[in-house]
Formats: sequence, C-alpha cells, structure tokens
Amino acid sequence: MIPSIMEFTGDVTTPEGFLAAGIHAGLKREKKDLALIYSRVPAVAAATYTSNRVQAAPLVVTREHLTDGRAQAVIVNSGNANACTGRQGLADAREMAALTAASLDLKPEDIVVASTGVIGVPLPMDHLRKGIPRVAQALGRAGGSQAAEAIMTTDTCTKERAVEVAIGDRKVTLGAIAKGSGMIRPDMATMLCFITTDAAIDPETLTKALRHAVARSFNLITVDGDTSTNDMVVIMSNGLARNPEIRTGTAEFNEFTAGLEQLCVYLAKTIVRDGEGATKLLEVTVQGARNEEDARRAALSVCGSSLVKTALFGEDANWGRIVAALGYSGAQFDPDQIEVYLGGIKVVERGGAFPFDEGGARRVLGESEVHITVNLNGGRGEATTWGCDLSYDYVKINGSYRS
Amino acid sequence: MIPSIMEFTGDVTTPEGFLAAGIHAGLKREKKDLALIYSRVPAVAAATYTSNRVQAAPLVVTREHLTDGRAQAVIVNSGNANACTGRQGLADAREMAALTAASLDLKPEDIVVASTGVIGVPLPMDHLRKGIPRVAQALGRAGGSQAAEAIMTTDTCTKERAVEVAIGDRKVTLGAIAKGSGMIRPDMATMLCFITTDAAIDPETLTKALRHAVARSFNLITVDGDTSTNDMVVIMSNGLARNPEIRTGTAEFNEFTAGLEQLCVYLAKTIVRDGEGATKLLEVTVQGARNEEDARRAALSVCGSSLVKTALFGEDANWGRIVAALGYSGAQFDPDQIEVYLGGIKVVERGGAFPFDEGGARRVLGESEVHITVNLNGGRGEATTWGCDLSYDYVKINGSYRS
Repeated sequence: MIPSIMEFTGDVTTPEGFLAAGIHAGLKREKKDLALIYSRVPAVAAATYTSNRVQAAPLVVTREHLTDGRAQAVIVNSGNANACTGRQGLADAREMAALTAASLDLKPEDIVVASTGVIGVPLPMDHLRKGIPRVAQALGRAGGSQAAEAIMTTDTCTKERAVEVAIGDRKVTLGAIAKGSGMIRPDMATMLCFITTDAAIDPETLTKALRHAVARSFNLITVDGDTSTNDMVVIMSNGLARNPEIRTGTAEFNEFTAGLEQLCVYLAKTIVRDGEGATKLLEVTVQGARNEEDARRAALSVCGSSLVKTALFGEDANWGRIVAALGYSGAQFDPDQIEVYLGGIKVVERGGAFPFDEGGARRVLGESEVHITVNLNGGRGEATTWGCDLSYDYVKINGSYRS
Repeated sequence: MIPSIMEFTGDVTTPEGFLAAGIHAGLKREKKDLALIYSRVPAVAAATYTSNRVQAAPLVVTREHLTDGRAQAVIVNSGNANACTGRQGLADAREMAALTAASLDLKPEDIVVASTGVIGVPLPMDHLRKGIPRVAQALGRAGGSQAAEAIMTTDTCTKERAVEVAIGDRKVTLGAIAKGSGMIRPDMATMLCFITTDAAIDPETLTKALRHAVARSFNLITVDGDTSTNDMVVIMSNGLARNPEIRTGTAEFNEFTAGLEQLCVYLAKTIVRDGEGATKLLEVTVQGARNEEDARRAALSVCGSSLVKTALFGEDANWGRIVAALGYSGAQFDPDQIEVYLGGIKVVERGGAFPFDEGGARRVLGESEVHITVNLNGGRGEATTWGCDLSYDYVKINGSYRS
C-alpha cells in the first residue's frame, strides 16, 4: 500500500497556482530581506499568532485582513520586526499591504503582512516603497527558495518542505517556508511559517486543521524560552486541486490535517536544529503521564532546561538534571516511578540511578540528534517535544545581535 | 535616630550561643565538604523547601524532624545531593542525623540534614561516618566561615551576613550562611541558607516570619530557570537574647521580620551576583502593575529571559527584548503604556522607542550592577527581582559539571 502522505523537497510554490519571490530591498546590508507569496486565484486563509501580550503591528493588520477568511498574497520583510513602533508602525504595516495590493491589482484586505527582525526601530519605508513593486515583478514558480531566504534572520539555512496527501481520488499538495532560530518557545516563537496548498477547504475547517497541526509542532519546540512579538503561521488554500471540499469530521479532514501536521513537524524540527548556536537536536518523549497535557509539560520542561541543554552540549549523561526538570515541570507523577532512557540506554529506574555503560551513553550524546525518553509510569499521556543544546555560540550570537 | 536594623559582616555564629565548623571529609577531592551548625541550648526551628516534585532524601528527613518545631543542630554536606537515591538515600540521610546526634549527645529528631551536589549518586557514607564526629569536635565560635565554605558547590565565594534588630529594649541578632550559584529560580533553587538567631520566638511565629522573608528574597531571584531538588532555608532561634517572646501582629514581629528579610535579600543578591558565569547583577523593578503578583511575574520574566541576559552580557541596550519578556510574562497590562529605564535613562515611552544617548546607556550596562526599571502605568503593584547575565562561562561550567 502506498502511504497516503508523501513528504518531499518543495516550498510554497509546489502546490498548484502559487508564485513567490525574494529580493534584497535594503533593510539588511546585503542579504535578501523581502519576500512575497502569491496565489493566482483568491484563496481561503487561516493563521495562528504569538501569545505574547505585546504584538507587532503586522499581526494587528493581518488579523484584520483575515477576518473574512480570505487572502491572496503574503508580504514579509526581515531585518526589522515593526514591533513597539506605535501608530507609525501600524501605518507602515498598512502601507506595506497597500503597496503589495497595488502591485498585484488586489485589495489591501487580501494581503497578509509579516515582519521579523529587531524590535523598536521604524520600518525604512523608502526601501519598501521601492522594493515591493520589484518583488512583485520577480514573482515566479521558482521563487520559493528565494522567499525562504528573504525571511531569514539569524537562521543559518532556509526552511522549506512539501507534502502530498490523497484526498478522495485527488492529490492535494501542501508547501511551506519557515524561519526561526532564537526566541523560540511553545505557544509560538520568533518564527514565521507560510504554508500554501491547492486543497479546496472552507476557512473554518482550515483554521481547525491549522490549530491542530500547530499545537503538535511549533508549540512543542523551545530554543531559549523567549516568545516573540511577531510570530505567525499562515496558510492559504486556493482550491486548484479540485478535490471535493474538505469537511470537518471526515476521513479526508483527518488525512489533510495529518499531512499538515507532518509538514509543520518537519519545519519545527528544522527550526530547533538551527536554534541559535545549536549543535544538536534534542527530542524528548514523555510516556506514562496522567494525561497528554502533563506529558507535554514534562517534555517541554526537559527540553527547556538550561542545565539539560548545557549537559547535552557537553555530552554529559547527567540524568539528575533531567529528573530535576521533570520535578519542576508542574506535571503530577510519582518520582519513585520515573524511568529515563538516553537513546536506547536506560539510565534511571524507579526514580534512581540505573547502572549504564558510560561509553555507550557518550556515543548517544555525541550524535547530532539525541532522543531522551521518559516513562512516568502513571498513565497513558504521551508527548514528544523538540529543543537543542545551549552552546557558547548562543551567547555569542545574542550578546551582539543589535550591533 | 539609630536605624532599628543594623547589617554587618557576620555568620551563623554571630548570634549568642551558636557554634559552627566546616571540614574536608572526603566527598570532594580537596575542598571542605561537611558543615555543622550547633546551638548550645535547644532551639525553635522553621524551614521552607524546594517546590520541585522530586525532593531529595535529606528534605524528607528534615521535614520529619521539624514537625515539632524544634532543632538543635544542622549537618550539611556538599559534593553529593543525596537526591534520586531511593531507599538507600533515605537511610543515609537518617544515618547522617543519627551520627550527628550521637556526636553531640542529642536526639536524631533534633538534627536538620541537608545535602547539595551531584544527583543520583549514593552518599559515600564511610567518609561521613568518619567526618561527622570530626566536624563535631571542630565546633567553635569562629567556625561560621568554614561552615560557609563547606557548603559551596560551584560558588566562587562564601555567602555570610548578620543583622541586629532592636526588640523592645533588647538587641536580637540574626546570622546566616548560604550557598547557590546555578539551578537558581523562584520558589527556591539549588540553594541552601541556614539562619541562626538568639531571638525568643515560638515556632509558628518563626515560620510566618521566615515565609514572609523568603517570599521577598530567595523567591525573587533567578539564574537559569532551573529549580533544584535540594533547596531549603532553615532558621533556628535559641532565645538567648532574652527578649520578650515575639508574637504575630506586634511591632516587634514586624521589626524582626524586616531584619530577617533584609538578611535574606542580602544573601539572595549575593547568590545571583555569584550566578554561574555571571559578570553582572541585574536588578529589575516593575512599577505600575495591576497588583504585586503581576509586578513580580513581569520582573521575573525580564530577569529570566535568555535574550535579556545575553544582551546584558554583551552590554547592548536592546530594550525590545525587555518589552518582549514583559509581553510573555503572563502579567496583564496595556503594551502602549510601557516605560522602560536603563539605570536613569529612559529608553521606552508609551511602548515604543524613546530617543536616548547610546553612550550613556552603554556606560550603565558596563557597570557591575545594572538596574532596569519598568513602569506599566496600570496600577500600584510593584516588585523588585534579581538575576544576572548569561555568559560563555555559564555554558562552560554547566557543560562539564559532572566530570
């Protein structure tokens, strides 16, 4: 049997009817800093936003524009977050939408606006006034990777992926680009993700699918415990796959959502692997929790612990820090029932030391991906979360970001 | 008028009737690792413990021993936390109490037991069986600093202080030693603090005073967001000052508690100043919050932000990170009303950039103590919390602690 979800190299232009571009508009010194994603036909759209109480201007504008569940283009700049910029910031975000709309012959309400970069500095609108028409000119089927490049900040690599899902007798394709490297933690992060799909689906159902996928991907990663003012995940569906419209509660909905989740998990893991200064990806699975919420809490606590992260960087099998992080996670469990595994090696049994091969553990910790499995032996709750180690370079990158 | 609280250089032997000692018992390679504090007469005692769900064996034993509100000695080892050590760990903690009691001709129930160091390794009881009688032999009026030295782990300096408070026409003295450097965060931390006083006070009133002081000192500091399995703050009062017994709700209670709070704040700040790898002390005051709880949350969020901490290390006036940390703190406020000051320099007004002198800000950030003041302009809640910067050395120290 052919698996119903196929994952492959691709980006926002992989689904039918989407174009993209990324250019250097002058917000950064040399690198690409302005991206545009465009659907040839009107699309249904949904989004999730940062939980930070301080929300950047582009989020306010995007929220307004998505109240009707529709959008046709996404304009994104890097190099400047347009956050904490007051009324001027709001006016600038609206002007970005208006300029994009004018360049594409759309209404401003059909434009999603996003920004990422330094906080508190007004957008250099001159560069954007010249750049937006240029990026619209540059739109093409091959522009997805350039767009992925143009939304990077401290990222060291672009983040792009696509999946294909069978919906009835039709193939539906989803493609995405993302950015994020620091200020990453659950309930969103300094991260942006733009997803396109040619599926036919109504806005409410799309929102439901997106929330489900984000809860199981981007909200399960942590780099440094900081949540940004600018995060958003946006999906546009243009229906060009001509599948029967996907409806909640059907097998098709489950297939579509599973594909979307897989795409988001791939990108979420790419973000933590590229975490500022990260040398390793950390995957923590907690099993046997009282419920899923407790499992999630416990796993995120381990992923987020500075002491676990530095031990991981030092390749030190210091399981006491894992147990301590479980202990302060807020999850309820019996400490005497904890089991911990590093890779396949058991290191904790009944809450205490279990004799293990230090050489074997060191080999596990020397890998570029390290899996920690915890069994709390107290229920059926299970969750997997992702993080990275804490290295000298995290300090270096963040000790001098602004300058 | 003479201020009623006088603070000065001193330790647990400063109050009347207390002796202490610190020796090398062999748990560490060369350094002192076993401390004893002893009151010549029976004392009233109270304690607060870590909020970590995983609690080390000595905490279990100490809790049992303090149910009657009395204790006469504290035995503490460093180099081994006796945490996650199961039944053997409990038996070992009990044996530490029994050995101490036998050496001092007391009952085991009068002994407080504490441990700090690596998790999950059984205590080397042979060393303790030989060491405890020796440390009891070494007790003296001059042993407070040795005891302070013997409880250190990654600390780079001892933490000792005393205060004197007028209670009626009597002087009451409080002295303390503490340790803590990493794994420090609100609701206790990898920290131990032992306080002695010659005040006459009943156990319930003493507990109340201690809780008040800890809430306003040790629970307002953060180094790395990790809460340890071993924290405790213990106070013993032996009544030798012969003051009229302190009772709740009196002026004397307020005086005593204020003195205790001042002592604890001093030590709490010493702990963060000595935070692993710290080069600077960070003091964050939040004013104008809806209530005190929100002020505390907001201030701790700024103190705990990895991005604020690395910017502080890099001496970069990156106020956007401060605003972002306020935003995800969980405190409720209007983002457009935020004001932020670095030292005396205003950098944020109405939630956005306020033009400031970069040179001046750099000088403020170059100091060894940096004060950030935030006004949320939304109420009367106010709180001050303390933290430190995040440096290369934090990573270095914690990347190789076990080995």
